[in-house]
Amino acid sequence: MDASESGRRILSELMGPDYVEKKDKNRNAFNEAIQQYSEEVCFGRIWARDGIDRKTRSVINIAMLTALNRPAQLSHHIEGALTNGCTVDELKEILLQTAVYCGLPAAGEAFRVAEEVLRTRGLLD
Amino acid sequence: MDASESGRRILSELMGPDYVEKKDKNRNAFNEAIQQYSEEVCFGRIWARDGIDRKTRSVINIAMLTALNRPAQLSHHIEGALTNGCTVDELKEILLQTAVYCGLPAAGEAFRVAEEVLRTRGLLD
Amino acid sequence: MDASESGRRILSELMGPDYVEKKDKNRNAFNEAIQQYSEEVCFGRIWARDGIDRKTRSVINIAMLTALNRPAQLSHHIEGALTNGCTVDELKEILLQTAVYCGLPAAGEAFRVAEEVLRTRGLLD
Amino acid sequence: MDASESGRRILSELMGPDYVEKKDKNRNAFNEAIQQYSEEVCFGRIWARDGIDRKTRSVINIAMLTALNRPAQLSHHIEGALTNGCTVDELKEILLQTAVYCGLPAAGEAFRVAEEVLRTRGLLD
Amino acid sequence: MDASESGRRILSELMGPDYVEKKDKNRNAFNEAIQQYSEEVCFGRIWARDGIDRKTRSVINIAMLTALNRPAQLSHHIEGALTNGCTVDELKEILLQTAVYCGLPAAGEAFRVAEEVLRTRGLLD
Amino acid sequence: MDASESGRRILSELMGPDYVEKKDKNRNAFNEAIQQYSEEVCFGRIWARDGIDRKTRSVINIAMLTALNRPAQLSHHIEGALTNGCTVDELKEILLQTAVYCGLPAAGEAFRVAEEVLRTRGLLD
Repeated sequence: MDASESGRRILSELMGPDYVEKKDKNRNAFNEAIQQYSEEVCFGRIWARDGIDRKTRSVINIAMLTALNRPAQLSHHIEGALTNGCTVDELKEILLQTAVYCGLPAAGEAFRVAEEVLRTRGLLD
Repeated sequence: MDASESGRRILSELMGPDYVEKKDKNRNAFNEAIQQYSEEVCFGRIWARDGIDRKTRSVINIAMLTALNRPAQLSHHIEGALTNGCTVDELKEILLQTAVYCGLPAAGEAFRVAEEVLRTRGLLD
Repeated sequence: MDASESGRRILSELMGPDYVEKKDKNRNAFNEAIQQYSEEVCFGRIWARDGIDRKTRSVINIAMLTALNRPAQLSHHIEGALTNGCTVDELKEILLQTAVYCGLPAAGEAFRVAEEVLRTRGLLD
Repeated sequence: MDASESGRRILSELMGPDYVEKKDKNRNAFNEAIQQYSEEVCFGRIWARDGIDRKTRSVINIAMLTALNRPAQLSHHIEGALTNGCTVDELKEILLQTAVYCGLPAAGEAFRVAEEVLRTRGLLD
Repeated sequence: MDASESGRRILSELMGPDYVEKKDKNRNAFNEAIQQYSEEVCFGRIWARDGIDRKTRSVINIAMLTALNRPAQLSHHIEGALTNGCTVDELKEILLQTAVYCGLPAAGEAFRVAEEVLRTRGLLD
Repeated sequence: MDASESGRRILSELMGPDYVEKKDKNRNAFNEAIQQYSEEVCFGRIWARDGIDRKTRSVINIAMLTALNRPAQLSHHIEGALTNGCTVDELKEILLQTAVYCGLPAAGEAFRVAEEVLRTRGLLD
């Protein structure tokens, strides 16, 4: 299995097969190369590595995406974190810690994004 | 034990008693309040929480401090991560993942900082 | 009066009682701790301090939130600045200065956010 | 021709006369000074300079605005880049390169913004 | 008095005549235009404006430069703030507030920079 | 020629064979994977692409690295830009443009870095 295939499999396990299908339908001549980059480099090369488990990779991403101010991607990776076994309580702890280091506005936005995901999944009233 | 005391104990366990002693010697009328803030809020209020273990807290900090471009604090928290049971291989995996999301310049700087800490500790030739 | 109560009072004076009421209605098991953090640490511990007046604290926040690219929070703190006696002309001066240091895209976005607040308040045609 | 006039002409050539007309209609006592700043300093003073051609200036802006996380302004400058002779393929190459240095989330957002512009212009199915 | 002259006067009042003299000695064909930009746009056009006093302008800059992670420029503007009548206690309050919004690493670095300036000026033991 | 080899060749052409040799001497078990990533992904996969020339790639990097606050990497890529045919005057224009969009502190730092490189190369007195 080459990097692209293995990346697509990981992406599908992480975000669900619908997510990958939707990405494939949106693929065109303009975004083809960045999609390849995402599948081969991000998922096929980095996420595919051993050494830390997927749950830890999700934790790292939530921390980085909060710091980098990227709410759209944060939303996807909160989905991924839940899939990888991160509990709602653990998610809360991670985001609370971002308040001290990234500042309260960053943490507040991350909580808002997380609450949306949790509501969609029926994990929050 | 109040938040300040409990924060100082955690800080001491994380960075070593020498680190805390040095901070205390540098304490003055100007930085007194921010040092209190660090001890009570950061360590006494957030790091003191249950819900995720200290190693996970270290992982989160390494990810955030790399994204936030804060090499001096990253250096301390790489120390802390090693103390909290993060292996050199795990550290490598965390930093590799930052390359994809924060960009190669951020990851390159984080590797440079980490190598310095590892050399000081005799964990890298 | 403890830090939480004093923080809630300041928040209510700054953003209005409706803002606090709405936050309370949105409080749940997931965001409880970050709301406590906001009330106790941000407003009860920092905003509650003497040494600079509230108008100056609003000025600082507008500058930081523009630099940090946080338009949603900037909007709230432009409200707060007006409440704290910042005039429309002073607001204009603060935002103009951000153009030089944070760059024109940051300042342009901050002006856009401020104009929305001013229009809602009937302070701009 | 003074800096303001020359800036307005460049802005009009870059974004189209409708863009300038719309800006003029939105001009008011509050944003007058930042609009002057934009016309005189940004376009009349910097974009008006010789030394590099306008297409290169567009390339620089796309790179900066992706790094700075400013999608609204990025959208305008992708328009400008196309006007200045940047091809769709060149645009793709620029954005791909941002993935390595600014990280994949920044590049992904920039591709999303660019695709919208390209679709509006009929340059992408 | 044109913008350049008026900017140089303000810069001299803010940072001292030695600072301006040193900048002039370092002026060369490569940095001539950015120095002009700094004098005319930053100081001659923005700092020269009425509407808020210079002390408030210094407060804004300290907040922005802490958020933007620019310690070298922060150091100069802490000098300027003291010149503009900002007390050591007020400086402490401003920097404490950055901890909540920009995060503790940003505030810690700003305190470190400020302490250096205060020591050089004999305002801190 | 595989991606790694082709990346190493481009890196050598861009920064000089001494730069690559020095990197190889610093290679160890800890940084091996990030060096591979740099060679294969950054240089072998992205810089190796056709579609824009290397001088344009250098321009993009200077713009991004100034925005991202990464002076050490900026220094290397200013070297690379000169190698790729960017003139001193063009370099000046690029950096001037960053002042408007990234802010004056970012541009000032980038000029400082560039002047060091130019002096080392004998291109500035």
